[in-house]
Amino acid sequence: MSEMDVFFNPKSVAIIGASDNYKFGYATTKYLLDSKFKTFPVNIKKQEIHGHKTYKNIKDIPREIELAIILVGNKHVLQAVEDCVEKGVKGIIIEAAGFAETGIEKYINLQKKIENIAKKSKIRIIGPNCIGLTNFYNEFTTAGIAFDEGAKGGVSIIAQSGVLGNIFVDWGIDQGIGFSKAITIGNKVDVDEVDMLEYLNKDPDTEVITLYLEGTKRGKEFINTLKNMEKPVLILKNGRSKIGTKAVNSHTGSIAGDDKIYDAVFNQIPGIFRISNFYEMFHIAQVFATQPLPEGKNIAIITGSGSLGALACDEIEKHGLKLAKLSEAAKNQIKSVIPNWVSIRGTIDLGPSLFETFIPSTKAIFEDRTVDSILYIFSIPRWPLQMYGSIASNIIKKHFKVVTELSKQYRKPFVCVCFGSRWTFDFLKKATSSTNLEVKIPIMTRIEYAIKAFKFMYEFRKSLLVKSNE
Amino acid sequence: MSEMDVFFNPKSVAIIGASDNYKFGYATTKYLLDSKFKTFPVNIKKQEIHGHKTYKNIKDIPREIELAIILVGNKHVLQAVEDCVEKGVKGIIIEAAGFAETGIEKYINLQKKIENIAKKSKIRIIGPNCIGLTNFYNEFTTAGIAFDEGAKGGVSIIAQSGVLGNIFVDWGIDQGIGFSKAITIGNKVDVDEVDMLEYLNKDPDTEVITLYLEGTKRGKEFINTLKNMEKPVLILKNGRSKIGTKAVNSHTGSIAGDDKIYDAVFNQIPGIFRISNFYEMFHIAQVFATQPLPEGKNIAIITGSGSLGALACDEIEKHGLKLAKLSEAAKNQIKSVIPNWVSIRGTIDLGPSLFETFIPSTKAIFEDRTVDSILYIFSIPRWPLQMYGSIASNIIKKHFKVVTELSKQYRKPFVCVCFGSRWTFDFLKKATSSTNLEVKIPIMTRIEYAIKAFKFMYEFRKSLLVKSNE
Repeated sequence: MSEMDVFFNPKSVAIIGASDNYKFGYATTKYLLDSKFKTFPVNIKKQEIHGHKTYKNIKDIPREIELAIILVGNKHVLQAVEDCVEKGVKGIIIEAAGFAETGIEKYINLQKKIENIAKKSKIRIIGPNCIGLTNFYNEFTTAGIAFDEGAKGGVSIIAQSGVLGNIFVDWGIDQGIGFSKAITIGNKVDVDEVDMLEYLNKDPDTEVITLYLEGTKRGKEFINTLKNMEKPVLILKNGRSKIGTKAVNSHTGSIAGDDKIYDAVFNQIPGIFRISNFYEMFHIAQVFATQPLPEGKNIAIITGSGSLGALACDEIEKHGLKLAKLSEAAKNQIKSVIPNWVSIRGTIDLGPSLFETFIPSTKAIFEDRTVDSILYIFSIPRWPLQMYGSIASNIIKKHFKVVTELSKQYRKPFVCVCFGSRWTFDFLKKATSSTNLEVKIPIMTRIEYAIKAFKFMYEFRKSLLVKSNE
Repeated sequence: MSEMDVFFNPKSVAIIGASDNYKFGYATTKYLLDSKFKTFPVNIKKQEIHGHKTYKNIKDIPREIELAIILVGNKHVLQAVEDCVEKGVKGIIIEAAGFAETGIEKYINLQKKIENIAKKSKIRIIGPNCIGLTNFYNEFTTAGIAFDEGAKGGVSIIAQSGVLGNIFVDWGIDQGIGFSKAITIGNKVDVDEVDMLEYLNKDPDTEVITLYLEGTKRGKEFINTLKNMEKPVLILKNGRSKIGTKAVNSHTGSIAGDDKIYDAVFNQIPGIFRISNFYEMFHIAQVFATQPLPEGKNIAIITGSGSLGALACDEIEKHGLKLAKLSEAAKNQIKSVIPNWVSIRGTIDLGPSLFETFIPSTKAIFEDRTVDSILYIFSIPRWPLQMYGSIASNIIKKHFKVVTELSKQYRKPFVCVCFGSRWTFDFLKKATSSTNLEVKIPIMTRIEYAIKAFKFMYEFRKSLLVKSNE
């Protein structure tokens, strides 16, 4: 049992500043009161909220409370925290903003007082200036997440910024990315990235951890924890520029520090990868969460477009990987099914014959020992897919079913990059998720994310081998 | 009148290889036969296609034909071209693949024969190995485009690859990007990027030209034409890597050449901008097509998220631009409407008060002479927007209406970067397109594209000033 469990699966919850008005906190209140989580609303002015008896103070609740969520404005937070201490809660999430991030002394001091309470008591505090967290497995959330179908998966998030707790999750679910835990830690008066990295490293539902960091206050522990991680960690650090650093300092009140130091640290630790943007971070994470690790650098590219294949080659070279040179056996197998003028000298450009030739070609590629990873560039325009209707959809479903089986048999990662309309993307998403097989095929819209994913996964595998030899 | 007009607005069209089976060419045939464009199907085996009398040969059609679209397989193309010459057509589009791009001598020679016909006759030929073109204004297309609402705009495309002719157009329309012409030129036996640049430079419906290039056969003319362009040209050139170059050579049969030479050429010519990927290319083009050019480097950032604001600062510094320092007057105006702890020291972080404070803050920013461009980072999660329903949508519509008026009055570019779910993106798209005002506000999902757009537009304005002083 970890001290952090109270945040992810609380036996009882109090919402201080619960609201049935359309204001900040409304969604969290309504969701938790309607949920299976035993929840008690606290509001000084109300008798009842959404049919639930409402208490003037957390101390009035006639039973033990494990987790308190504080939704009141910044001025009232200190009193609420003190009430929680008296009540004997185990964890507090403070969502309100208006603390150290303002740069105003009064509010910096207010934050310090809360920090001191956390230090003196055994209570663990998340926030302030955050939106708390979401557990996609038991559907506990303080962040107003809609648990759409397919939202559950192996990607976890630790982030200083609230936008990672709902906005990017909303986006990720649309993209077919599956999440385990999403934690926003805000100004970090107590719980920080170190606590959460340690927790997620042991969380059985988490396969890969994404971390959005603006700065750390515990440099030494942070580095040690990163060194001891068993799971891959993808880090996006903000504030690379001078003006960006200044903006960060005024935002969550943390010290961004010299970005070069972070770069050096991340580069030294195997299994830790620095990422350039949010979209890239989640797409690469999804590949880590769903695909086997590649054994080498050789990538085979199946494409319907020579141009997009060439772009993929640029990316492969940029990242020091290799375009797989197929064995003669594989080449002959593919040649026997494709039109004689189709090019398989570099990428496997199946052109318009892709519908019929995909399965035998892909089989030959998976079987080929020279191939470590497979990138499939899907570039069929919308109209023929729509025109063929369920015929096309059944063909594509069959393609992905075969890929899933091959991927399992040969333990090679496979990623589909989809170009075109949203309709096409959704068409593929349906085709890959309806196979009812254990492995989910990641779909994304950028070649560069797929290539980077193969690179990081190859490096992660090497780091595991080094560790197992130690 | 240009020789190219026959491709964009033909008085009469013959489709050689017209088909009523679900195969390549079906959509083009059906669309054109049902359209206002006078179209005649040619098919050696059929009497009638979709209720239209079908001719065995183009020469049998009892009237003048301006444009022939050749959809037959590679083996039959040469004969079809010769028939077109006899018929006296003005333009031919050859869509079939299987020519020089195969690297096979037989097919290279076949392409040469067609090239020679083009040289000897006055007929202009587009292709082979392409999907022809689309004119979004009169809705003429050989590329199977669905003319959804909002597809019409100021962005034109010239591309060697077919994927730019439909797949990326499908994507762009989803994103709210408005197109004028999209031309795929394939293996370029005759019509090439030089012809089309000259045509689009004079096309009144084209505001900005995007060019996807794998290589040029007319280096000198290409450079001269670029130098004489009056409109901005965004160029994506493939084949930066060795393996990518090899892939390109085998793809459209053109010579990619040394990439560094292209880089040097593009850098020297004002108003020409080299782009990194397709998505960036079209989003930046949309800003060029809809927004006024900024007079300086100072960008104001309005945001609801400090983290995303800080990321934008990183991008501004990376591209040598400046975060606008607001005048005291503007600061005071904004301070009078926002909570006293909200930060406006760097970015204008309106936080959760954005709904009420957006209009007066934006007004102050547009009025401020120190501000040249405005970036608005939209990061409101889905649930409050959905919860408030039409109230939220009316507020946001009003915001964008005010922005459109301010942008017109002060001649400053404004771009909205939207983070979150597709639902949120569509919500904004509706809000910006329902204002019925002349200017359309570009929405995109990447801060870096918006900042790059401001940079290129500033540089383009400088290049215009230099030209007008010459």
